[in-house]
Amino acid sequence: MKENDNTAVLLIHCPDKPGILAAVTEFINQHKGNILYLDQYVNREEKVFFMRVEWELTTFQIPKDKIEEYFQTLLAIRFNMIFRLYFADTKPRMALFVSKMSHCLYDILARYAAGEWRVDIPIIISNHPDMEPVAKRFGIEFHYIPINKENKAEQEALQLKLLKKNKITFCVLARYMQILSSDFIENFPNRIINIHHSFLPAFAGAKPYHAAHERGVKVIGATSHYVTTDLDAGPIIEQDVTHISHKDTVDELVKKGRDLEKIVLSRAVEKHIDRKILAYKNRTIVFQ
Amino acid sequence: MKENDNTAVLLIHCPDKPGILAAVTEFINQHKGNILYLDQYVNREEKVFFMRVEWELTTFQIPKDKIEEYFQTLLAIRFNMIFRLYFADTKPRMALFVSKMSHCLYDILARYAAGEWRVDIPIIISNHPDMEPVAKRFGIEFHYIPINKENKAEQEALQLKLLKKNKITFCVLARYMQILSSDFIENFPNRIINIHHSFLPAFAGAKPYHAAHERGVKVIGATSHYVTTDLDAGPIIEQDVTHISHKDTVDELVKKGRDLEKIVLSRAVEKHIDRKILAYKNRTIVFQ
Amino acid sequence: MKENDNTAVLLIHCPDKPGILAAVTEFINQHKGNILYLDQYVNREEKVFFMRVEWELTTFQIPKDKIEEYFQTLLAIRFNMIFRLYFADTKPRMALFVSKMSHCLYDILARYAAGEWRVDIPIIISNHPDMEPVAKRFGIEFHYIPINKENKAEQEALQLKLLKKNKITFCVLARYMQILSSDFIENFPNRIINIHHSFLPAFAGAKPYHAAHERGVKVIGATSHYVTTDLDAGPIIEQDVTHISHKDTVDELVKKGRDLEKIVLSRAVEKHIDRKILAYKNRTIVFQ
Amino acid sequence: MKENDNTAVLLIHCPDKPGILAAVTEFINQHKGNILYLDQYVNREEKVFFMRVEWELTTFQIPKDKIEEYFQTLLAIRFNMIFRLYFADTKPRMALFVSKMSHCLYDILARYAAGEWRVDIPIIISNHPDMEPVAKRFGIEFHYIPINKENKAEQEALQLKLLKKNKITFCVLARYMQILSSDFIENFPNRIINIHHSFLPAFAGAKPYHAAHERGVKVIGATSHYVTTDLDAGPIIEQDVTHISHKDTVDELVKKGRDLEKIVLSRAVEKHIDRKILAYKNRTIVFQ
Repeated sequence: MKENDNTAVLLIHCPDKPGILAAVTEFINQHKGNILYLDQYVNREEKVFFMRVEWELTTFQIPKDKIEEYFQTLLAIRFNMIFRLYFADTKPRMALFVSKMSHCLYDILARYAAGEWRVDIPIIISNHPDMEPVAKRFGIEFHYIPINKENKAEQEALQLKLLKKNKITFCVLARYMQILSSDFIENFPNRIINIHHSFLPAFAGAKPYHAAHERGVKVIGATSHYVTTDLDAGPIIEQDVTHISHKDTVDELVKKGRDLEKIVLSRAVEKHIDRKILAYKNRTIVFQ
Repeated sequence: MKENDNTAVLLIHCPDKPGILAAVTEFINQHKGNILYLDQYVNREEKVFFMRVEWELTTFQIPKDKIEEYFQTLLAIRFNMIFRLYFADTKPRMALFVSKMSHCLYDILARYAAGEWRVDIPIIISNHPDMEPVAKRFGIEFHYIPINKENKAEQEALQLKLLKKNKITFCVLARYMQILSSDFIENFPNRIINIHHSFLPAFAGAKPYHAAHERGVKVIGATSHYVTTDLDAGPIIEQDVTHISHKDTVDELVKKGRDLEKIVLSRAVEKHIDRKILAYKNRTIVFQ
Repeated sequence: MKENDNTAVLLIHCPDKPGILAAVTEFINQHKGNILYLDQYVNREEKVFFMRVEWELTTFQIPKDKIEEYFQTLLAIRFNMIFRLYFADTKPRMALFVSKMSHCLYDILARYAAGEWRVDIPIIISNHPDMEPVAKRFGIEFHYIPINKENKAEQEALQLKLLKKNKITFCVLARYMQILSSDFIENFPNRIINIHHSFLPAFAGAKPYHAAHERGVKVIGATSHYVTTDLDAGPIIEQDVTHISHKDTVDELVKKGRDLEKIVLSRAVEKHIDRKILAYKNRTIVFQ
Repeated sequence: MKENDNTAVLLIHCPDKPGILAAVTEFINQHKGNILYLDQYVNREEKVFFMRVEWELTTFQIPKDKIEEYFQTLLAIRFNMIFRLYFADTKPRMALFVSKMSHCLYDILARYAAGEWRVDIPIIISNHPDMEPVAKRFGIEFHYIPINKENKAEQEALQLKLLKKNKITFCVLARYMQILSSDFIENFPNRIINIHHSFLPAFAGAKPYHAAHERGVKVIGATSHYVTTDLDAGPIIEQDVTHISHKDTVDELVKKGRDLEKIVLSRAVEKHIDRKILAYKNRTIVFQ
């Protein structure tokens, strides 16, 4: 995975009109940037243009710290663009939130330890002490912050302080069994990724495997999504399912679900790290 | 597919206790029946035993018309069984209900015409005239029975009369866009198979592809189920899904969904024809 | 599916260098074409640029019959492009080749009859008479052209004559169980689509389901591909698989395989009809 | 997963004839065993009966250490059975073989550490030192045993000595990139599980992702199988695939393949641990 570190990524959306694609590619080409990946999509119903472009900076003639300003001045104003600019050598910083289950946690830490992802994970936060030994195995700071009705506000304040101190750019709820307050969520708009153990919108809320078993479905699923103040209703990033049969008890659904959950969560996290997701009006555009 | 025509199938359920499996297999073996397929399942939570057994009758010593009585007397009473006995040479008789879409209809008729299924399809009933040419192509009686609020009761009575006259044993709603009344449904308990174009329980009711698009899901699905008086809430037989992306418009979901719908419906119909489904408490046991 | 009929599609490939995308989109934009779909891909290992662009012609200022010449002069020479230009209102013309099995045939004809595809199917050719009634049902000319070692050359000549007479642009082998000669194939380079009943390259050649059963695999597959003179080794368009178990006999593999085959073939045919496939060096680029 | 520890499992195969199922279930029932799971399968072509039955021993009247003898005397001789008897409280003992890649290793160790499997993993053996830190994280003995052409025989002897000393009952090759000798394999017939990174029989041997990319397939797969002296040709346990496109480079195939490999391997290992696999004539019966 020894990928090029000296690249920039632009995520753009704006009202659709002719010439945007040409203008953006020309901006990069004429200043000697080498385009590595480009993906665009036009939502024709809403007439919105979306684009992700990644280019090499080695020969790019605009200095790194001027790109945002130049792009704003030369392109964004003209096309009424909303854009974000990222650099590959500025790694996102992830905080992991867990409770008592280890499968998603291990899946993420195994990838992290193997160097699969361009990310830093300075802290793990939990409302239970159970996962501390796992955090230790991987040499990551573990913060046990128990939460109940009475202390929720102050404990969340403590969490936010930790996130700030560690310069966290996004949070991953790896089966974190505690609902975040709206106040907390608003600090990380489209920057908190959750895994829900059902194919949403079916079986939102608690105990989806019990509900799935009760309903007698023939597939179970998992959904990773950005957390919004509306529970289990944020923009969906990834979903997958597996087939089950009448023979599967709730315990077997839980077991089969674990593999789904960890893969579906890790795929979403990877795309977030790679700056391939653009959330727009409670949906996601996931670039390739 | 030149399968043996001279076989019997027993579908059984009863309170679980030791010895049921041995007793049933012994009943068949000692009277010289040759067991072809056997599948059993015990629901341990509810302590219920379920079984499907198919055996060859050629050498079976109990006359065909006495099997039900003997099984009742010798086994069913002892184990408190509820059972159904079917013979392969007694084909189920299907009525097809359609509206304006042809994909499920063609998929079923193509299998029927190719002799893939041991079934008779004497009639197609529709609330629209559009599919009459398709019915004609396959030489099947087509009955156009338009339904509105005012005439619903009498038109359903007409449908039921047709079903009775044609000795219909089960109905298949191949994208029939008309809600059946409770009265109608009660004539065919677990004998009406519907295809719903979503992975239920998500997106029950009208326009599921629009709802799926609106919600921004990353998979769409289809569900075949027995129709109960509770709309889209009957026992699920089969479900499958396909992956979609932000690029898919509602029209594209409709298009991708068609292939799902037809396959998921036909699989359910096939299992029903093969007497492999046992509905129990709003869930299905689907034997192999 | 009442899609716009007045559109053009360009399929392009050329050596990769900066500015191609901007130049092509500018060519369309500046002459008042409205781009509907655009997908591009750069093969970085081989440094080749691939692109498909579809635009509306209603307001396009270059006359339809001049587009090819202008594009050649203004763009293709400059970038060393190989390109093909298609118009949506010029429907491709398909010849269907079948033998004794009806499942792929019905799947294609059902879509055709429902108007799902922008294609004409003037003739069905078969080396067996069995499918003639199906052809009749759909009102399509059926040509029974039996082939054996002795008459192969002359019968293929007869087939080619029929294809020419009917202005056929591509052929679909819907389980046509007869190997085409190299001479025949060279008349339709990347214009003959076959369905092979295995996940190629496994189980090429005859009787793949028997071979799969013998090997004890846990998935079976189907592969649609362009036919080349190298048997079952042409560019792959689509593949899919289904899970099987030790319980499945060869007959059951054949049965499960039918649904795979028909869906995988129809998806490939649809993409060919929509001019979304570009074959390059024995692989396909399948645009979105 | 606090499952019952006091159970026995029988894996049986024998020539098919009437009465086997009744005889086995009666053997358990009449001595007050409580059957928990039962799955049987008859291969009709070869006329072989296969069965797995698991029952509770708490009330079973035959002493644990006599069950094998009694079953042999009372049943196995009569029906010409080959059988294996296992007890849930006798955990299988796994040796893990790895090379340089960590994804399968982590997936197995995470499940092991979470207590998901009833297994002991006393040692990890590797031909490279790279994974030693991972072994340490989980507190498992790591043995670095480099192998080259010259030392292969003696190093394998050393491995076998370690396996014997640790009472290893089966080996798992978690992307172990070294071919085992026939001598080694014969010590563990159907007791060595390998993961091959393709859907076998396609792309056997080295560099399957390169071969898949070269061939231009649209799905890639992974296969777990028992190792036999015939390379990549042993009985297949599990297979799965994922869809790819022309955009995927070999590196991306490797990356997508990792998730497939780890899940497909872990599923096979779990079934082996649960004594659900019966290898017969180079195929597997995988009971439910």
